[in-house]
Amino acid sequence: MPKLDDVLSTLDANQGAALDRLFSLLEIPSISAVPAHFPDCDRAADWLVRELAQLGFEISRIDTPGRPMVLGSAKAKTRDAPHVLFYGHYDVQPADPLELWKTPPFMPRLEAGEQGERIVGRGAADDKGQLMTFVEACRAFRENGGLPCNVSVLFEGEEETGSPSLPAFLIKYAKSLKADLLLVCDTSMWDAKTPAITTMLRGLVMEEVVVHGPNRDLHSGLYGGAAINPIRVLARIIADLHDANGVVTLPGFYDGVEELPDEIAAQWRDLEFDDKAFLGKVGLSAPAGEKGRSALEMIWSRPTCDVNGIFGGYTGEGTKTVLPAKATAKISFRIVGKQNPERISQSFRAFVKARLPADVTAEFIPHGGSPALGLATRSEPLRRARRALEAEWGTPPVLVGSGGSIPIVGSFKRELGMDSLMVGFGLDDDAIHSPNEKYERSSFHKGARSWARILAALSQ
Amino acid sequence: MPKLDDVLSTLDANQGAALDRLFSLLEIPSISAVPAHFPDCDRAADWLVRELAQLGFEISRIDTPGRPMVLGSAKAKTRDAPHVLFYGHYDVQPADPLELWKTPPFMPRLEAGEQGERIVGRGAADDKGQLMTFVEACRAFRENGGLPCNVSVLFEGEEETGSPSLPAFLIKYAKSLKADLLLVCDTSMWDAKTPAITTMLRGLVMEEVVVHGPNRDLHSGLYGGAAINPIRVLARIIADLHDANGVVTLPGFYDGVEELPDEIAAQWRDLEFDDKAFLGKVGLSAPAGEKGRSALEMIWSRPTCDVNGIFGGYTGEGTKTVLPAKATAKISFRIVGKQNPERISQSFRAFVKARLPADVTAEFIPHGGSPALGLATRSEPLRRARRALEAEWGTPPVLVGSGGSIPIVGSFKRELGMDSLMVGFGLDDDAIHSPNEKYERSSFHKGARSWARILAALSQ
Repeated sequence: MPKLDDVLSTLDANQGAALDRLFSLLEIPSISAVPAHFPDCDRAADWLVRELAQLGFEISRIDTPGRPMVLGSAKAKTRDAPHVLFYGHYDVQPADPLELWKTPPFMPRLEAGEQGERIVGRGAADDKGQLMTFVEACRAFRENGGLPCNVSVLFEGEEETGSPSLPAFLIKYAKSLKADLLLVCDTSMWDAKTPAITTMLRGLVMEEVVVHGPNRDLHSGLYGGAAINPIRVLARIIADLHDANGVVTLPGFYDGVEELPDEIAAQWRDLEFDDKAFLGKVGLSAPAGEKGRSALEMIWSRPTCDVNGIFGGYTGEGTKTVLPAKATAKISFRIVGKQNPERISQSFRAFVKARLPADVTAEFIPHGGSPALGLATRSEPLRRARRALEAEWGTPPVLVGSGGSIPIVGSFKRELGMDSLMVGFGLDDDAIHSPNEKYERSSFHKGARSWARILAALSQ
Repeated sequence: MPKLDDVLSTLDANQGAALDRLFSLLEIPSISAVPAHFPDCDRAADWLVRELAQLGFEISRIDTPGRPMVLGSAKAKTRDAPHVLFYGHYDVQPADPLELWKTPPFMPRLEAGEQGERIVGRGAADDKGQLMTFVEACRAFRENGGLPCNVSVLFEGEEETGSPSLPAFLIKYAKSLKADLLLVCDTSMWDAKTPAITTMLRGLVMEEVVVHGPNRDLHSGLYGGAAINPIRVLARIIADLHDANGVVTLPGFYDGVEELPDEIAAQWRDLEFDDKAFLGKVGLSAPAGEKGRSALEMIWSRPTCDVNGIFGGYTGEGTKTVLPAKATAKISFRIVGKQNPERISQSFRAFVKARLPADVTAEFIPHGGSPALGLATRSEPLRRARRALEAEWGTPPVLVGSGGSIPIVGSFKRELGMDSLMVGFGLDDDAIHSPNEKYERSSFHKGARSWARILAALSQ
């Protein structure tokens, strides 16, 4: 068995080369939501195949109806070592609005920040930087005699678009994917000094609705007043989705949503989360969701209805006195507890249809969904991971919820009965999904060291 | 004096050359709302200067803080001839959505239609085709001995953006512009066989509002529920602008709006306007505005509030789970009677501000406005024009209202005390401001013949 100290020393010594590797992955604009970037998704997948093959993995790209999967494995040096499967995603969010980036999103660079140097670029934190922490840990073990666990890896290219190809893939490749534990690195630390393990995840339902009125764009002088305006209809629907207290009005929406258990509620209160500081960083001062609930409670444990985008009519500079033929909204729901994605999707569609006046129709474009997930907080792997993280960071990790959804975790639980360990090194101000996304250099380096410690701990 | 019959024969003989001239003007993408097309606006102005100079006009391009004006005049062959000023605009609406055009918007062409051949291209009807009917009439007079009236022309390049430079221009060039009568060719016929003179015009107020929330786009997983969403705020404001009966809810909005005089109401009823046919052409079946009012009444004589465009968040393909930093709407009001544009603008802004929750601000971008206008229906020039149009079309013109606004008419009345004669040859299905805009070839040719008859009639 390699000595952990040697592995950590190797990681310390090779930081420059590790950064170079990450930068070359960040340079690939693998935006899974935009068809023009599908070839870039392929390139990112191929890049990972080459990278892991160099580390002795039996690995290959497997095409799907969507973006390809990268799947492979490498044996531990010792017999009877546990078998872990690491999951990450190589696809990234679109980079627009481009004009708000200080430098081009796919030309990664280092800049000085409050926590030392930071890595700036689309995907730096979500999820290329995070997945490379694990790859670098594997590399360091390989350079010191071999892996302490049997390690499989699965890199997905559709995480940012709801993972449409994943369910069928899990069933088809169940045998290759089955392991003792799923490791996921797509979550955040509590703060820059305190690691976190995520044990509660919100689910996600994504809907797009196109409201159609006249059969073409009309002149508002010739038709204004007499012709229905789809933007008005859509605005009314969106306005109706919440009541004055921020409660979502979809019938049945809160079915399966339970109040927090007292012990968890107490633990979260002890965190003394600062609503004002959290919101202040993004220019806000007051929680805007359900009245009477804290920001942390809303983000970790309450369901939401969000409008992610809207467009219709003339959107260029200046004016155009047009009545548009249609208007579109992209709407998503963060869901919790036992909320059923399919039922929420149906309730939303019925809600829209019930609000269409004469001559107006609605077209629905589904973009997938996944239920919420809670994880057992007292397992042996979790205990070992907590110790390993405390050794690296000098402070024990907190067990947190996450507002975002990681569909893979639920899918692996359902399809393969596998538990997950969600450890990530992102920070709240990483600006994931926003311009000037960054990942702390310390997250990248100490993240790799953390995985080295966790792999060693799991193998003992 | 040239004989009218010779002038009409010249117009009949030169149709091909007239079409060529119109096409070369239509090929210039003079979109006044888009800065990238400002040079094209200059080109269109220069084209008109050359064209009119060939016809013996003393004419020049006059630069303004916005797009240039084209102003010039030519003397009549006889003394004591009346003096008319013809107004048209060379700027056009943006052509998007481009993908809905069957052929490129600035490559004009002829195609077969229900009324015979039609001219297809952006600006064919609004207003290049219309203004060229008058220019062709002048050309035919010139080729037959000279003009029957003293003719001035004013071609504007900002009609589609609210004519911001016009008021100051009217004051500065009052002496050059003053004439006995303003002729405007920017309106429609009653139907393909029945000419119309427009005596009632709605005004227009244009506003753009940007609702700002967080200081950057946020991940809906990390912030959804806790951070205010500007799209939701904007949707609520838009929904609130009308009540359930289609009545605009802005305080004071209907101040200055009067019910139609009985005689006008009776005349409009006699037109037996077919709401269903009018709306059926654009894929609709029911009037969508104020309950209990006919489509004609709403379009000609009632004020409206229209949302011309909306955008915010992710508007590309697929999904992006973002909470946007801002959302924008372009909103315009068609106004009638004595409604005050400035007061409506103020009322709208107060209405928006009253609906902003904590942490949300609104930015207002004004795009100009003009009051509504009613014209005397019993003047001598109107009587002569009615006879001239009846002679050309074989049926007397109807006196109509117009849903669109023509700011110049109000400005000339206020600044120079000039009455207007509004005669145009557009048809309801010309798709102005929409993809595949067209102008009937018969409108173009018989329009020119109509102006020849009107000029002759005014000079007698």
